[in-house]
Amino acid sequence: MPESQRADARRNYARILAVAEEEVAAHGADASLEQIARTAGVGSATVRRHFPTRQALLEAVSQHRIEALRVRARDLSGESDSRKALLDWLSDVVDYCVSARGLAAALSYDDSGSDPVHENACSARLYDAADPLLDRAIRDGVVAKDVTVAELITLIVGIALATEHGADAATRADRLFRLAVAGLSPQI
Amino acid sequence: MPESQRADARRNYARILAVAEEEVAAHGADASLEQIARTAGVGSATVRRHFPTRQALLEAVSQHRIEALRVRARDLSGESDSRKALLDWLSDVVDYCVSARGLAAALSYDDSGSDPVHENACSARLYDAADPLLDRAIRDGVVAKDVTVAELITLIVGIALATEHGADAATRADRLFRLAVAGLSPQI
Repeated sequence: MPESQRADARRNYARILAVAEEEVAAHGADASLEQIARTAGVGSATVRRHFPTRQALLEAVSQHRIEALRVRARDLSGESDSRKALLDWLSDVVDYCVSARGLAAALSYDDSGSDPVHENACSARLYDAADPLLDRAIRDGVVAKDVTVAELITLIVGIALATEHGADAATRADRLFRLAVAGLSPQI
Repeated sequence: MPESQRADARRNYARILAVAEEEVAAHGADASLEQIARTAGVGSATVRRHFPTRQALLEAVSQHRIEALRVRARDLSGESDSRKALLDWLSDVVDYCVSARGLAAALSYDDSGSDPVHENACSARLYDAADPLLDRAIRDGVVAKDVTVAELITLIVGIALATEHGADAATRADRLFRLAVAGLSPQI
C-alpha cells in the first residue's frame, strides 16, 4: 500500500476510534456499531473490520485509560506505605471504571475467550501493572496472602457495573469498594 | 371484559412470561423482545404492552427467584448463629444471581428511576426480606454497624455481573463474595 493510502487508513481509523470513544462513554457496553458507523460517515462493514467483536471495540476505546493506570501504578511503587499505595491505585481503578462506562465492560470479558496472544487485552495489561503493588503489600504482611490482582479488578468491575444505572454512581461505588476492603466484621 | 376474554388474556400473558424466562436465562439482560414475541407467536406490541421497559421484563421473570429468597430469609431467621444466617442467605443470593442471569440485571436498575409505588420492585422486596437478618447480626455485634442490605445486595449483583462472561462463574463469584466478606486485611 503506498504511503498516502496508509495515511488515509490511519486517519480513517483515528476518526472511527474517536467516534467510538464518545459512543461508549455515553452508552457503555451497549454502544451501537451502526451508530458509530453513521456518525463517522463510514459503512458498518468498515467499523466491523476495525472492531470484529464488541470486546475489541471496548478494548480499543479503553487504551488511554489503561495506559494512565499503568503510569499511576509505576508512580505509586515508590510510596513507603505499601497498603496505601495498593489501595490508592485500586481506588483510581474504581474512579476510572465509573467515569468511563466502557472500561468496566471491557474488563468483564474473560480473556480465555479471546485470542491468547492478543497483546492489548485490557485486563492482562492492568494485571501486569498492579502485580508489583500487590506483591509488595503481601510481602509487608498488610494484605491477605491469597488475594490476586485479577480478583481485585473483577470485584471493582462488578462494583462499577452494579452502580452504573443509579444516581451518584461515584459515591456509591467508592463506598462499596471501602466495604469490600474492610470486610463485614465490626472494625475494632 | 367477559370472563372468557380475561382467561384468554391470562393464558396469553403466562405464555409470553414463560418464553421471556427462557430467553432471559439464556441471554441475561440483553434478551431480545422481538425474539420473545416471535417465539411466543405474538406481535412485538403485545410484548411491549406487558413489559413496557426492560426493567419490567427482568423483574417479571425474576419473581419466582425473589419469592424463594424471601422464604429462605424467613427460614434462616430462626438460626442461633446470626452471622452465619446472614452469610448463608447472602450466599444463596450469589448462587441465584449467577444461575439466573436476569436477576442480577434486574437488581442493578436503580429503584429511584422507576415508579416509586411500583410494589414489585425486586430489590425492595429482597431488602425487606433481609432486613431482619442483618439487624440481628448487627445487634449481636458480629457485623459492622454501618452496613446496609442495599449495599450487600449491590455488591453481590456486581460480583455476578463481573463474572458472568467467564468460565466457571459460580466458583469465581463465590470466591469474590468470600473476599468481600473477609476484606483485604490478613486474617489472624
